[in-house]
Amino acid sequence: MITLYHCDGARSFRPLWMLEEMGLPYELKMLPFPPRVLAKEYLAINPLGTIPFMIDGETKMTESSGICYYLGTKYGPTPLVVGLEEAAYGAFLNWMYFSDATLTFPQTLVLRYSQLEPEERRNPQVAGDYAKWFLGRLRAVEAATANAENLCASRFTAADIVNGYALRLAGNIGLSRDFGPNVRVYWARLQEREGYQRALAAERKAGIEQNVAPRIRA
Amino acid sequence: MITLYHCDGARSFRPLWMLEEMGLPYELKMLPFPPRVLAKEYLAINPLGTIPFMIDGETKMTESSGICYYLGTKYGPTPLVVGLEEAAYGAFLNWMYFSDATLTFPQTLVLRYSQLEPEERRNPQVAGDYAKWFLGRLRAVEAATANAENLCASRFTAADIVNGYALRLAGNIGLSRDFGPNVRVYWARLQEREGYQRALAAERKAGIEQNVAPRIRA
Repeated sequence: MITLYHCDGARSFRPLWMLEEMGLPYELKMLPFPPRVLAKEYLAINPLGTIPFMIDGETKMTESSGICYYLGTKYGPTPLVVGLEEAAYGAFLNWMYFSDATLTFPQTLVLRYSQLEPEERRNPQVAGDYAKWFLGRLRAVEAATANAENLCASRFTAADIVNGYALRLAGNIGLSRDFGPNVRVYWARLQEREGYQRALAAERKAGIEQNVAPRIRA
Repeated sequence: MITLYHCDGARSFRPLWMLEEMGLPYELKMLPFPPRVLAKEYLAINPLGTIPFMIDGETKMTESSGICYYLGTKYGPTPLVVGLEEAAYGAFLNWMYFSDATLTFPQTLVLRYSQLEPEERRNPQVAGDYAKWFLGRLRAVEAATANAENLCASRFTAADIVNGYALRLAGNIGLSRDFGPNVRVYWARLQEREGYQRALAAERKAGIEQNVAPRIRA
């Protein structure tokens, strides 16, 4: 049984969505955010205190996009993974790494310095610098979806899951109002997927059952 | 022929090191940093203006750690990649994603707000926040190298290349003085590798031949 530690709306939504798309059995453990402050016992499980944390037998992982790749390759074959023999292999890998290292990291700066820090440590300059940075990098998604329903390989893949999550986060931190027209249509289409809806429902249900309040949305 | 666009000391050093470890033929194109300001013609090649950019036939990639994984799987088999059937597969993937998304992103904040920005936009608070963040995440490397010469799989792999680069960058931005004892020994060992030395030499040689000055080190 795969165990996934998750906070409402956090990057751990990527593997949650992947698990739902693949129909794999899993146990979802909800934590308040940030767990390193509000659930200190979690540090005994994941010393970094970061979310997600996934346990699959002896395998333990903390990187949200890496977990999606692991699940797709370990428990595939699945069309969600673009294989070595496909022309889009490099593009697919690039989107997998891009999703967190390039697209989500600037979002975490916006969140931190506009919302999470106490008033006196907030910093509109830095939040603004990285809102701009995020929107600059998002042009790659705008270009890729100009004439395609998905990011690569002419089908829905894990690349859409991991970058789709960044669009969900953008909505939660006030950045979605600046989406380009293609990203708007693309994100609306992703949200209609049954797998996405199931992941959202699983997140809500686990939050209620485990008595972890959802985070307040921006 | 693989073409790699690189700036002295930038993340593109990861695929450069990987290419040297694999002994693959490649062409190295040096750019001044930041290319989106100092080499505007580069935007026609990579519209994001980011480094690295790798071209391999029809494949184009921008993510430094993703390119290493691509090269290792596309032009393998190589012991540098941990395969699906190995016990350390998940750990290996996690280190691959961790290297840039978790370890290098805080470093870019330190670099930006302590060195790259004009004086009036520098921000010691933010640079300090992310120096601390980097050192917090680096505890994972300190723990992994406590009783092992390499990060995973009991051998040198691409995981050591991509995280090793973050240690090189730390030296360049003044963060290496706070390395823990295991990280110190690990990083000294990595620098002794012939593949690392060849990559450094290739970087210097291309910089001289293409008349691109090396960056000033912190």
